Amino acid sequence: MSMEDRLQPRRPRMMHIPFLLFLQAVLIVLFGFFVEYDSPAEPEIHAGTTPPKSAVQDGVGNSSDAGKKTTESANGHHRPNDDVNTLGHYYPMFQDVHVMIFIGFGFLMTFLKKYGYSAVALNFLIAAITLQWATLCQGFFHGLEGSDSIHVSITNLLNADFASATVLISFGAVLGVTTPFQLIVMSLIEIVIFAGNEHLGLETFKVSDIGASMLVHVFGAYFGLAVSFVLRRDHSSDNEGPSYTSDTFAMIGTIFLWLFWPSFNSGLAEGDAQHRAVINTYYSLAACCVTAFALSSLVSKDNKFDMVHIQNSTLAGGVAIGTAADMMIHPWGAMVVGSAAGALSVLGYRFFTPAMNKKLNIHDTCGVHNLHGMPGVMAGIVGAITAAMATQEEYGVSLFRQFPARVPELNTTEFIQLKSQFADMEPGLGRSATNQAAFQMYALLTTLAVAIVGGLLTGFLLKLPIFDQVPRHRLFDDELSWEVPEDEEHDDHVFSQAEQGRNKRTGPAAGSEPGMIPLMNR
Amino acid sequence: MSMEDRLQPRRPRMMHIPFLLFLQAVLIVLFGFFVEYDSPAEPEIHAGTTPPKSAVQDGVGNSSDAGKKTTESANGHHRPNDDVNTLGHYYPMFQDVHVMIFIGFGFLMTFLKKYGYSAVALNFLIAAITLQWATLCQGFFHGLEGSDSIHVSITNLLNADFASATVLISFGAVLGVTTPFQLIVMSLIEIVIFAGNEHLGLETFKVSDIGASMLVHVFGAYFGLAVSFVLRRDHSSDNEGPSYTSDTFAMIGTIFLWLFWPSFNSGLAEGDAQHRAVINTYYSLAACCVTAFALSSLVSKDNKFDMVHIQNSTLAGGVAIGTAADMMIHPWGAMVVGSAAGALSVLGYRFFTPAMNKKLNIHDTCGVHNLHGMPGVMAGIVGAITAAMATQEEYGVSLFRQFPARVPELNTTEFIQLKSQFADMEPGLGRSATNQAAFQMYALLTTLAVAIVGGLLTGFLLKLPIFDQVPRHRLFDDELSWEVPEDEEHDDHVFSQAEQGRNKRTGPAAGSEPGMIPLMNR
Amino acid sequence: MSMEDRLQPRRPRMMHIPFLLFLQAVLIVLFGFFVEYDSPAEPEIHAGTTPPKSAVQDGVGNSSDAGKKTTESANGHHRPNDDVNTLGHYYPMFQDVHVMIFIGFGFLMTFLKKYGYSAVALNFLIAAITLQWATLCQGFFHGLEGSDSIHVSITNLLNADFASATVLISFGAVLGVTTPFQLIVMSLIEIVIFAGNEHLGLETFKVSDIGASMLVHVFGAYFGLAVSFVLRRDHSSDNEGPSYTSDTFAMIGTIFLWLFWPSFNSGLAEGDAQHRAVINTYYSLAACCVTAFALSSLVSKDNKFDMVHIQNSTLAGGVAIGTAADMMIHPWGAMVVGSAAGALSVLGYRFFTPAMNKKLNIHDTCGVHNLHGMPGVMAGIVGAITAAMATQEEYGVSLFRQFPARVPELNTTEFIQLKSQFADMEPGLGRSATNQAAFQMYALLTTLAVAIVGGLLTGFLLKLPIFDQVPRHRLFDDELSWEVPEDEEHDDHVFSQAEQGRNKRTGPAAGSEPGMIPLMNR
Repeated sequence: MSMEDRLQPRRPRMMHIPFLLFLQAVLIVLFGFFVEYDSPAEPEIHAGTTPPKSAVQDGVGNSSDAGKKTTESANGHHRPNDDVNTLGHYYPMFQDVHVMIFIGFGFLMTFLKKYGYSAVALNFLIAAITLQWATLCQGFFHGLEGSDSIHVSITNLLNADFASATVLISFGAVLGVTTPFQLIVMSLIEIVIFAGNEHLGLETFKVSDIGASMLVHVFGAYFGLAVSFVLRRDHSSDNEGPSYTSDTFAMIGTIFLWLFWPSFNSGLAEGDAQHRAVINTYYSLAACCVTAFALSSLVSKDNKFDMVHIQNSTLAGGVAIGTAADMMIHPWGAMVVGSAAGALSVLGYRFFTPAMNKKLNIHDTCGVHNLHGMPGVMAGIVGAITAAMATQEEYGVSLFRQFPARVPELNTTEFIQLKSQFADMEPGLGRSATNQAAFQMYALLTTLAVAIVGGLLTGFLLKLPIFDQVPRHRLFDDELSWEVPEDEEHDDHVFSQAEQGRNKRTGPAAGSEPGMIPLMNR
Repeated sequence: MSMEDRLQPRRPRMMHIPFLLFLQAVLIVLFGFFVEYDSPAEPEIHAGTTPPKSAVQDGVGNSSDAGKKTTESANGHHRPNDDVNTLGHYYPMFQDVHVMIFIGFGFLMTFLKKYGYSAVALNFLIAAITLQWATLCQGFFHGLEGSDSIHVSITNLLNADFASATVLISFGAVLGVTTPFQLIVMSLIEIVIFAGNEHLGLETFKVSDIGASMLVHVFGAYFGLAVSFVLRRDHSSDNEGPSYTSDTFAMIGTIFLWLFWPSFNSGLAEGDAQHRAVINTYYSLAACCVTAFALSSLVSKDNKFDMVHIQNSTLAGGVAIGTAADMMIHPWGAMVVGSAAGALSVLGYRFFTPAMNKKLNIHDTCGVHNLHGMPGVMAGIVGAITAAMATQEEYGVSLFRQFPARVPELNTTEFIQLKSQFADMEPGLGRSATNQAAFQMYALLTTLAVAIVGGLLTGFLLKLPIFDQVPRHRLFDDELSWEVPEDEEHDDHVFSQAEQGRNKRTGPAAGSEPGMIPLMNR
Repeated sequence: MSMEDRLQPRRPRMMHIPFLLFLQAVLIVLFGFFVEYDSPAEPEIHAGTTPPKSAVQDGVGNSSDAGKKTTESANGHHRPNDDVNTLGHYYPMFQDVHVMIFIGFGFLMTFLKKYGYSAVALNFLIAAITLQWATLCQGFFHGLEGSDSIHVSITNLLNADFASATVLISFGAVLGVTTPFQLIVMSLIEIVIFAGNEHLGLETFKVSDIGASMLVHVFGAYFGLAVSFVLRRDHSSDNEGPSYTSDTFAMIGTIFLWLFWPSFNSGLAEGDAQHRAVINTYYSLAACCVTAFALSSLVSKDNKFDMVHIQNSTLAGGVAIGTAADMMIHPWGAMVVGSAAGALSVLGYRFFTPAMNKKLNIHDTCGVHNLHGMPGVMAGIVGAITAAMATQEEYGVSLFRQFPARVPELNTTEFIQLKSQFADMEPGLGRSATNQAAFQMYALLTTLAVAIVGGLLTGFLLKLPIFDQVPRHRLFDDELSWEVPEDEEHDDHVFSQAEQGRNKRTGPAAGSEPGMIPLMNR
């Protein structure tokens, strides 16, 4: 293999280096032109306003739309700091989501025995790019809000984290079969399409999708599967399996995802809706975990449990409750949804994924179809049903906060009556419950369509000759992109008394120079 | 061994599958009948009330009783959302505790070299069951609060997490020697008894146990030890030891438990008491860590440190300060308690546990007696002593918040005088300091008694022929319940170029069907 | 080797035991004399004050000085609990920093294949000592605030965590080449000098260093390098390299540090400055990650990525933006700083560290010079430049909160005018922008000088004959301080069917007694 590596043309392998440097430079320039602090992060210019130290934490977050900025007031962004504690309100849940993105997704994908470096580190790189790029894309699609700048506050950071989840889900579908360069390009394209579809769903269709199950999970899964379909070659490899240690590392990802999913599903909600989203997600996940264990044992050899199911299907309840998480679905309803999702996901891993692999030629390394795809579609349907049943009797004024399009239109009798009761009410579109439900379904279907078409086109792009493909013997193998420590013979990748694999921090062994370091091959 | 596995009757091994599915169905039905959102998670039905967006975060949490709901007002649960930010107040500490339960306990128990899957995954399953079951049991014992429903808010989720800690402590005592089915049944029974004893302590004895050192730690430890005593067979096994990697994984659990213990001990406290609980726990744990290292080196071979002590005894200070954490024990007092607990715990591991194993026939896999048992008893005694010294001069009005039973009885001169100063004062039982201390001791002793008797009975139940026992050669072995990746010969469970162990996500190798997958034995 | 171990004198090896016990006793006595709860953790003695439950969370934290207590009012510490929710304000970010210290630093240093136990556990021990000792040292240097006690609240715990970071950075420079006893003594001395230098910078020079990049990172790095220079012997060892598993463990540390760095840089800021610190750190780190990957690939063999760079250089952006994090550097400015720091850090690992090792005889095990040293100096310079450009037009009243020394002097016309607008303004020193920038540079230079001199002196102390040195064959080897599980031949430190390495929790194998346990050598 070492001979083959040397014979490969060196140039394409390096393309990601100038590309990354150029990309980062462009991002900085774009940020220089377009991005400024939002008002809660701006200095207090004028006197006489409530000083920060006595500002109350106002439980703000007056929007449950993932894409909507919440802190802009009418009089521009030099407005006094009366909402200064936006940060305190969002920060704890933001950090939970942040952990999910980088530890959760990153370690969940370390399950392959020889792809641990790539899983956690490429997850890291892709997300770091996406955080910056999504800030711009989401800002542009949001129309710059009548200003010439994107004003960033903690909610933008949270939204950028959500966006990066989309890309990381797609990454899961093609884990081990793409080069870093392909992944970077895929991420950049995907974010643009994602931001457009998010805008369509939230601003045009005005749907409620608090946990982003449609806009993030369905989108990311089917986009990734479409890319995987196009890139499909012969993927059979001895590397595509876990080791005892790699499976244990993956559980770190699983558990952190499971723990912080309530923050993912409620981070952008407010008031009682946020509280419901936490409760519903908590019980949905608990129920999901139980059925996933039971089903795993049912369909596996000797009725043992299967780590693949435990690592992934236990999380399906978080996805499946995502759209309806803040609605009045009641704890038992959330548990029904979670249980069904856990069962569906295990069956997916056991039966659908192998079939998709064989019959449809779609390779899905992490099984994102079972964790994000099907549970996400389920979430969209559950959300539409729950929205169809939402009445003002049950929701009170919360109905209009949750489904702003259901507020009556301006100058109607109903709106005037409402306005007399709730002074802060803005006019809406006067949608009925079934109308809202229909739009929820539209958003699900357009998301599916946009994701699949976008993924197919992206896949074709990534097959262009400008892109290297992963050589067959380097599928699911860190050695494609990393120098793996040379360990004892027969002891690949383990703690051992390596002769080589010196500490890079203190430099290579005497005599070796850049370009002259002896090749480390196995 | 593969022959033996095949010869074993298959039926009993499957019993957990229908049981889990039935259990989850029952939980959903019970939730459907009995569980509703509590007021802060209910929509705002009536107009004219403070809208959520301007509600102040009120630093509420007006109860230091673990079992007491804090957000129910007199006028029922359709009350306006003036306490809407209950969630914001409790959520960060709730998530810390959540991490302790699933990452902390889960990874702490991965220290066995061949039981890592089971440790983290069965911890996950048991806790997911318990969260749901404890919501019901704690709700029922709390008498449904004069309503026909259990109203859940973030404090119920936090209390359910506390309850699951109890079960996971008991799990530690029998780690590796029980089947999943036995563990599930044990958990269900234990939670019922736990909830009863918790109710007895908090509502009847009206004790202060903010970190639940008696009600959770003492209970869980002695319940588990009693179960272990009854289940005891010949447990000697080569599997019962760590590997270098498994010990490192366990440190993830240790550190997260250590870090978030201040949240465990203060999550349900309020105001100045909560602040004290954080400070006291922080310094107690720091002091405990130092003495644990010193003692570990003192009693170990060649004066080296012992990972068992570092993983466990460094945490004993969190348990030992638990009951008195929010009392006026002062930082130096907390450090004395922490230091003593660290030392006691190391001595326990070095001398008591081997003796218990040999003389009393009690096997304690994780040494829960040294981490939860003895330090928990110590906490109870420290709590009683500190309560005996609590005066109104030192505590001011906080005295009556901390020990509500010390508020004078209704219509006494003392009560009328107090009420004139503190309008929100509810009448109490007029207990003296020593009286309160006596009740603290009663709670400790009844907890010990209830746990031991409950554990013995549960142990006998788990020995009934309906339950499979773990076969001798599968003690402390993941292969009982998991398909462990087939690694290179002599390289059990390590990263390696496995020929088998394919990725379950993309399906078994061509030609294999359910039930026909070739057996993977070592 | 086992023979050599036995022949070594046993006494010096034990010295840390009585020392640790004595130290902990002294800490308790000093806490008994000098440490009390601060007012938000004190009971509410007098009636008629705002009860805790209705106290608003006031977003307090009215100081951006790391060393300044924020909750002391003029009328002493028995003042009513009107700031009771200090805890709620600081706690989430405190816990993030807490995770960085113990998980972040602890696991980042597990990258060595045979030093994982020591990395995470000695990090744990040293930090636990430091938390207590720093509480005292920072309190004493702060002059006890006119009282005879140090009053501790959550901000003291946070400051103590910052202090411990300093020591852990130094630990990184000498990882694997010092005994536990040497590390403990080094930590105690370093904290005293650190607290003095911190006082000098914050109170005398009145600099702004919100992320403590100068006072913690620069200090810790150069102190550690100076110690390493003095202790330098022949450090070449086959042990100084990673394994596949150890490198994956290290990524846990990396990612948690990266995620929570915004909390580190903003935890002690307030209002809009805090919000800016979060945003700037987030984008600086994202940009840093991208350039670090690109540069890593550029300078490494075969244009692969290098785990050393990914583990460390991706974090340099957090350090480099630290001093200016809360200033008006704008997101694009933060990204420029982050990108430059990432590139500088990779180049440092690739070229400077090997040169320092060979030419200057300074061994830097973790490369702290590249992660904390150079990026910290960069942070100081960036901070000075940004301070030089700070105008009242841009910062408004925030200018005077951020640079209190720029407030005009008492009784000047300018001060009287300001005071009429901002009632809470305290008089300052009337510094100009360039004046402030000069003081920022003074603080950087004195920090460098104090750290290097202090480190050299400490290094010489640690070479005294009273201290054992690490024997040559135990460099970077856990066996110096730990009993490492005996695994299969050729399978050092891996999951395997060990014959020995029994579970310490349940006691040694029959027949073995303390002192008689057979030596476990490899």
